[in-house]
Amino acid sequence: MMDVMQPCSWHFLCIQAMHENHLDMEGVALKLFGTMKTNELNHLEIGGCDAVELAKEHGTPLYVMDETLIRENMKLFKNHFVSEKLDCRVVYASKAFLNMAICRIAKEEGLGIDAVSAGELHTSIRSGFPKENIYMHGNNKTEQELEMAVSEGVGRIVVDNLDEVEALARITEEKKLAADVLVRLNPGVTAHTHQYIQTSKHDSKFGESIYGRKIFEIINGILECPGMNLHGFHCHIGSQINDEDPFFEAVSVMADFIKVVEERIGYKARELNLGGGFGVYYSGEDSPIKLSDFMGRLVGHIEEKIERNELSVERVIIEPGRAIVGNAGITLYSVGGIKETYGGKNYIFVDGGMADNPRTALYDACYEAAIANRINESANERYAIAGKCCESGDIIIRDIELPKARKGDLIAVFTTGAYNYSMSSNYNRLARPAVVFAADGKSRVTVKRETLDDLIRNDII
Amino acid sequence: MMDVMQPCSWHFLCIQAMHENHLDMEGVALKLFGTMKTNELNHLEIGGCDAVELAKEHGTPLYVMDETLIRENMKLFKNHFVSEKLDCRVVYASKAFLNMAICRIAKEEGLGIDAVSAGELHTSIRSGFPKENIYMHGNNKTEQELEMAVSEGVGRIVVDNLDEVEALARITEEKKLAADVLVRLNPGVTAHTHQYIQTSKHDSKFGESIYGRKIFEIINGILECPGMNLHGFHCHIGSQINDEDPFFEAVSVMADFIKVVEERIGYKARELNLGGGFGVYYSGEDSPIKLSDFMGRLVGHIEEKIERNELSVERVIIEPGRAIVGNAGITLYSVGGIKETYGGKNYIFVDGGMADNPRTALYDACYEAAIANRINESANERYAIAGKCCESGDIIIRDIELPKARKGDLIAVFTTGAYNYSMSSNYNRLARPAVVFAADGKSRVTVKRETLDDLIRNDII
Repeated sequence: MMDVMQPCSWHFLCIQAMHENHLDMEGVALKLFGTMKTNELNHLEIGGCDAVELAKEHGTPLYVMDETLIRENMKLFKNHFVSEKLDCRVVYASKAFLNMAICRIAKEEGLGIDAVSAGELHTSIRSGFPKENIYMHGNNKTEQELEMAVSEGVGRIVVDNLDEVEALARITEEKKLAADVLVRLNPGVTAHTHQYIQTSKHDSKFGESIYGRKIFEIINGILECPGMNLHGFHCHIGSQINDEDPFFEAVSVMADFIKVVEERIGYKARELNLGGGFGVYYSGEDSPIKLSDFMGRLVGHIEEKIERNELSVERVIIEPGRAIVGNAGITLYSVGGIKETYGGKNYIFVDGGMADNPRTALYDACYEAAIANRINESANERYAIAGKCCESGDIIIRDIELPKARKGDLIAVFTTGAYNYSMSSNYNRLARPAVVFAADGKSRVTVKRETLDDLIRNDII
Repeated sequence: MMDVMQPCSWHFLCIQAMHENHLDMEGVALKLFGTMKTNELNHLEIGGCDAVELAKEHGTPLYVMDETLIRENMKLFKNHFVSEKLDCRVVYASKAFLNMAICRIAKEEGLGIDAVSAGELHTSIRSGFPKENIYMHGNNKTEQELEMAVSEGVGRIVVDNLDEVEALARITEEKKLAADVLVRLNPGVTAHTHQYIQTSKHDSKFGESIYGRKIFEIINGILECPGMNLHGFHCHIGSQINDEDPFFEAVSVMADFIKVVEERIGYKARELNLGGGFGVYYSGEDSPIKLSDFMGRLVGHIEEKIERNELSVERVIIEPGRAIVGNAGITLYSVGGIKETYGGKNYIFVDGGMADNPRTALYDACYEAAIANRINESANERYAIAGKCCESGDIIIRDIELPKARKGDLIAVFTTGAYNYSMSSNYNRLARPAVVFAADGKSRVTVKRETLDDLIRNDII
């Protein structure tokens, strides 16, 4: 089983020109993930479906998710984040990508769901997801969200701050219901990643620092409240982390803090939730952690720290999001034209852009892409891949080598499974693309493409 | 009339601490625009409506637009961009903010509409906007969009590139319909603004450079096509430009190019569309052009260049977007809590964030804000205003001085009328806020708040 549970079964496709007159140039590698491969028509295939056929059937732009890979990635965490001594739980961080279809998959694969808003909670519950496996997060949950979480009886509410303690005390009292809570800590561990998605410096908006006095006010506030059951602590040290050390450091710091709490006020935490942040491969710049190996080392470190500190922790939780869906998603775009500018830059114009993928503009994100209808051809042209929004920042890929592109080609941008659909907008009044799940040669629409009438359905004139 | 048509009738509110022990500190000024003022309850008022009452009636987060100011700004352009020799047109760049209600206002005020997608076109047409006053833009219009623009008979299609010439030749032939077109030029004029919204360097994705040979292929292609009427040329040199010179330079370069075209191929342009890009005040860093004065100088320069070059240009067009709606919009947020971090940074948590205003994360945009329910109180605390998204980059204002904030306060963020609602997403599955227009003491919902069910209405499980 181990072998098939690699997070991505990838191969190299040399898309660099291989003609003799180009041998001096370095080969460019394109990684394909999961079920993605080149078929006999020289087309990209995903989930056993020809990308060209998917575009014909469902239109473009199109988000396509490799359902098999999503399940494999979920299984990878479930099967490797295991311990003989601890109850290990995997919770899907749904902000990366959420619709009702993935909730059902998470349920079938035995994962929990991390929800950060009433909207995520509503989506999960409406899909039939078991409420007791939902973890409710957020730095600023509204009263309505807290009431909803308590009324619905979610598994855990992860309390961020003292205001939430007070609100939950009141809500549980009013509703005569109990809330099972964790407290979000800021362990002060910094991971090397984009500043926007670093969440654990001392001045982060998330959680309460383990170094201040206020954290004890929060813990005591919860312990004194009859309506709340404190199960333990949560932390999350950042996103897209490709380095193992910060995770180990977080475990150590959290375990030491749990010990301090025990010694200082006698409270013995039973749960430790380490959040997510596991990086994925976007481009050659990324060397993600090999998760199948790392999970074992991580669990080993957790067990060791718990044992050494003589803690009462029985359950440990991780919350991967991007690592489950990132590589499983591609976006298919039709090429509307090629522009060779007087300034020398050549553009491929695609029929989407920053409205369906704002990550390049937001984070300077790097993506790989291919011409999906001629995937094995030699790459000997440099392009920027630009969208159709009326804004210069509307670029999906700033610089890429591809085969000479033509109007009508189909571009596949890889690793768009996380934070693309979930961050999509209607900027320029572009209708949001459909989301298709592909597996075993079949595709199914899991989110319908927006219509022009969808854009004005809430308008009142 | 001139006096009441200032783009913003603003006053200074000293929100800096005025205690004697702070006199050595510089005063901080807050600009209020249009009908915004402080009322007798020490609340912010907009359109004659108390912001606190607006929040109670419509909920938060809430986009509120000062309808009176929108109309005043439209009138300012209409009344100052005038000439005795030329037919001067003002076209609203709807990508800044579009719903059906503003289309009706633009119609009533006699402006055209600049649409950049099928969605913007659909919204305008469904509102009853006269199609002949619609200008269809875009660097990569799809075939469907071009077909829609031709079938609907929009006033002008602004052709971006040779691919579009070919597509329009085919479509007009097939449909036996004529298309009235302009050609988008890249005049190579660079304005000093954020790199993402600079649109006119030589390697821009927009239009065709006036310095290359290809532009003549495009012009000749249109002139040779019986289905297309070429009316003239378009350019757009960038966004949020606070400097007059680039506009004058663009006029000169365009007029000289029109002369070159006349001399070289005998085509005499009758229309010159200069696009938009007029900056607005967001914070003390911005010194926008005083448009009421500038319009006269701009028209004078256009007349002079047309005369000197002996051009046949009869109609000139400008396309302001941000300058019409930017200052007219505010966003109201409820404060969910205040967090004083161990690292020393203090946060005000609001119930929206980068989902309703991504501009801080995208462009490092600076905004001003006030506590709308205690607007005249002294500001002596430093805060970051953070949203409720699970992401560290979810900050609306990185650093601001405000009165000591409390849970339950109402925060007004100013100048959110442009590129806020239009760029909003459902990130973290946050439902998008309602849009309310306020005028003469009344408020009306022009876009309904999204419901939780709206978030899953296109889902298929």
